[in-house]
Amino acid sequence: MEPQRRPGGRSARVREAVLDATAAELAEHGYQGLSMESVAQRAGVHKTTVYRRWRGPEGLVADALARAADQSWPIPDTGSLVDDLRGLTELLRTGFTDPEASPVAAAFVTAGMQHPDAAAALRSFYAARHAEAAVIIERAIARGELTPGVDGTEIVRLAVAPLFHRLFITHEPVTAEHARRAADAAVTLAESSWAAGSSAP
Amino acid sequence: MEPQRRPGGRSARVREAVLDATAAELAEHGYQGLSMESVAQRAGVHKTTVYRRWRGPEGLVADALARAADQSWPIPDTGSLVDDLRGLTELLRTGFTDPEASPVAAAFVTAGMQHPDAAAALRSFYAARHAEAAVIIERAIARGELTPGVDGTEIVRLAVAPLFHRLFITHEPVTAEHARRAADAAVTLAESSWAAGSSAP
Repeated sequence: MEPQRRPGGRSARVREAVLDATAAELAEHGYQGLSMESVAQRAGVHKTTVYRRWRGPEGLVADALARAADQSWPIPDTGSLVDDLRGLTELLRTGFTDPEASPVAAAFVTAGMQHPDAAAALRSFYAARHAEAAVIIERAIARGELTPGVDGTEIVRLAVAPLFHRLFITHEPVTAEHARRAADAAVTLAESSWAAGSSAP
Repeated sequence: MEPQRRPGGRSARVREAVLDATAAELAEHGYQGLSMESVAQRAGVHKTTVYRRWRGPEGLVADALARAADQSWPIPDTGSLVDDLRGLTELLRTGFTDPEASPVAAAFVTAGMQHPDAAAALRSFYAARHAEAAVIIERAIARGELTPGVDGTEIVRLAVAPLFHRLFITHEPVTAEHARRAADAAVTLAESSWAAGSSAP
């Protein structure tokens, strides 16, 4: 039987410590170098506790992603669709090129390619992120900038996909200009008859 | 001193055998499971030969990608921009979902996240692929479907990026409808004022 866990109790504190240690280890050694022993030692927790609760590195990554999904994203709210989407792609670009944050973010993406558990966690993580960012399109519709019915999550995906493509598939640099162009492409599509076709049966 | 290699000679035959074995091992075990010993055994080549010429798994992957880049892509030529791009994204989709070919393709992408050599090889590989596929846009310009000056490789990237995003970042299914919508989005952008801005200084 699973012991009852109270939020803010010992179990929650252990989780925080272990997931913080996971992020720190990912930043230093990447997903391939993620060891249960090092995470336990860094978190000051018994190795057996880490094994029992998270089973393996993919379990740690999945739970770290679940925690990250719960944290809110600072979605831009500038009063204009194009500026909001430019803010969003620039946020993504800096997140993946920041020397502190980017190794962890990249380790998450790599983990998703290597373990089905991590892939499932990434799917949930991005679903949450896209749903959250879709408010940008909902606000644009409310302001009359876009026709009702434009699929917000689809526009968000289109804005970010070219950046992920450069970062993780073609391994090309991503400049502020690339981030801006990707946002502007998504705006063009949101305003086009293409977007009107997205809710077609 | 490096021995002289004649095309079609022993050295070329060894390379073919080793790279075929690399692809087969990648399909079975993925990039993490790629071992120099297994590749050598499968290719019927001395282990020391494989180590001397390819150094490590990342060297094998980089050379397998270099060979793949030399092979031509069956770029669609239907006489219409939208049908050519739909053909291209569908080709990509089936390549990454085919049970035989997709594990190798996915292993290449994963390798790129784990080793700088493989990342550099992927960068060259995709640069070659995008340049090749850009003929679709050049033909559309020649037919008068698009304004001269539209950046072909940029349109190709936009057509394929949403599929890669689903496959390797968000781990969502990619249907024929997704491939079609991604192609149609790229056509909308190619015809828009957004594309006219792509050659701006």
